Amino acid sequence: MTNLSQTGKVLAISGGIGGAKLVLGLQEIMKPGDLSAIVNTGDDFEHFGLYISPDMDTLLYTLADVQNIEQGWGRREESWNFAAACESLGMETWFQLGDRDLATHLYRTNKLATGSSLSEVLADLSEKFGIQIKLIPMSDEPVRTMLKTDIGTLPFQEYFVKNRCEPVVSNIFFSGLETAQPAPAFLEALAEPELRAIVFCPSNPFLSIQPVLSLPGLLDKIKQSGKRVIIVSPIIDGKAVKGPTAKLMKELNLPCSVMTIAEIYQDIASDIIIDSADAGLAEQIAKSGMSVHCTDIMMRKLEDKKRLAGEVLQIATRQD
Amino acid sequence: MTNLSQTGKVLAISGGIGGAKLVLGLQEIMKPGDLSAIVNTGDDFEHFGLYISPDMDTLLYTLADVQNIEQGWGRREESWNFAAACESLGMETWFQLGDRDLATHLYRTNKLATGSSLSEVLADLSEKFGIQIKLIPMSDEPVRTMLKTDIGTLPFQEYFVKNRCEPVVSNIFFSGLETAQPAPAFLEALAEPELRAIVFCPSNPFLSIQPVLSLPGLLDKIKQSGKRVIIVSPIIDGKAVKGPTAKLMKELNLPCSVMTIAEIYQDIASDIIIDSADAGLAEQIAKSGMSVHCTDIMMRKLEDKKRLAGEVLQIATRQD
Repeated sequence: MTNLSQTGKVLAISGGIGGAKLVLGLQEIMKPGDLSAIVNTGDDFEHFGLYISPDMDTLLYTLADVQNIEQGWGRREESWNFAAACESLGMETWFQLGDRDLATHLYRTNKLATGSSLSEVLADLSEKFGIQIKLIPMSDEPVRTMLKTDIGTLPFQEYFVKNRCEPVVSNIFFSGLETAQPAPAFLEALAEPELRAIVFCPSNPFLSIQPVLSLPGLLDKIKQSGKRVIIVSPIIDGKAVKGPTAKLMKELNLPCSVMTIAEIYQDIASDIIIDSADAGLAEQIAKSGMSVHCTDIMMRKLEDKKRLAGEVLQIATRQD
Repeated sequence: MTNLSQTGKVLAISGGIGGAKLVLGLQEIMKPGDLSAIVNTGDDFEHFGLYISPDMDTLLYTLADVQNIEQGWGRREESWNFAAACESLGMETWFQLGDRDLATHLYRTNKLATGSSLSEVLADLSEKFGIQIKLIPMSDEPVRTMLKTDIGTLPFQEYFVKNRCEPVVSNIFFSGLETAQPAPAFLEALAEPELRAIVFCPSNPFLSIQPVLSLPGLLDKIKQSGKRVIIVSPIIDGKAVKGPTAKLMKELNLPCSVMTIAEIYQDIASDIIIDSADAGLAEQIAKSGMSVHCTDIMMRKLEDKKRLAGEVLQIATRQD
């Protein structure tokens, strides 16, 4: 068993649901001051004049234990009277806003409007939700995930929610990279001498991790840090645990396999955690130079999350 | 009985609850195209970045029959989960925003942000709520009711809601009058040849009617129109039906009496409708030159509203 007081610091990079599960597991077993998580903001958008940040809120709600688990997004004990009233006013309803959830969006929108940075707003929201680990947006500037599809170029939410991931994707790009920088606290976390590992949570590599890695200079900074980079595969036995990862891989002519995940990250990662179901591919993946770790990576219950988080920490603190 | 097809047009000037009751009565008995109502916007303010217009919403909800009658404001079948979530985020909660009500504020805020005038937004909201009479804000420009009190100068909502009308008022003034104009449709309604009467609803004279009458040039325009101006008293038997009218009168050293109402409006009004309880003052009021009409002006049920509206119409169409 890892001595938790000896783990040093960990920096997790996360998208929405899958990433939040592992961050929750890490939160449960680490000293709060040792864990920082970078949140993908490529999915952010403005709706009804509100600044909506889906991955940020999934992390906030998951870590604060107020998330709607059945629904997969939003808050528990939610009501929908605002949405019903919007519908009767003829407002767009493809992006659902629950009554409680709305408070988060309005709070963030107002803070941004009065000059706070996204980093400050996320720190503030974290505090309000009683979260003790450090949540950091990947950037304070807008970077937006855009998908080139058979029905035209779509901003992420129009692809993901409005069109339910149905359009066929031929390319993914990120707008705003000319002016965006990694958030200051992101760079500080990378430069932290006590940082033991950077963990890529089991999030969609194209839609959740790539926006982060596309930030100017970031790949080099991660490589130059010399830190252990641990990938947790979002693919198990040739299938994505959730979301459009498998469909996207097919459309991008990539095999839906943990092999593809390994190839995407092999230049940057030192370790990859794959599911025991994919153990047969371990030897082949190891040829890329990464250390391959096989375990059960499906996280259903809190115990699963804590156990996988524990294994991540063991790798992070290994002295090889 | 008045022949309703012969009434010509009526222009009502209204604040919130009391005014909305009479406008509802008029709506029920008039051809929709014959009735316009001017809404006080002196109570409007920005809260959480939302443009809130309490009297506008009271009229919309009352005329659309979705108002919360017990509460006196807001919508029926309302829920408060947004407000609860705001409270847990440490946001100000003195101004309560219901989940359904919020849709109206967000709709209006967005329309204004994309360049619509307040008149256009109100016309649009009226249509969405299925209201066929014409609702017009007093001005498209901001005019704000300000109260000089013993705890300082307060914008209306801070006096009315945040401080529950408790501060002692020494003066009332309206900011924004230097640049505000009556809304274009307001001026058109006044210039309408078929206009038979301007009706001042039983609203607070200082807080609901005075902001309207303070608009540059408006008093002269009403006088020059030569139309019948009918006042419906908000005071019955020395008491205000609702709200801070009586308290305000005392603080402004004015007797809380229908006599005061008569004196406020005597320069502009041709007719005043007072309650039968105040019949003893009719003769004295008549000395000002106004025609005095005594009837039951307390509006509890819809039937009361329709009956009083019918009496207003009879006065409006008299050929004296």
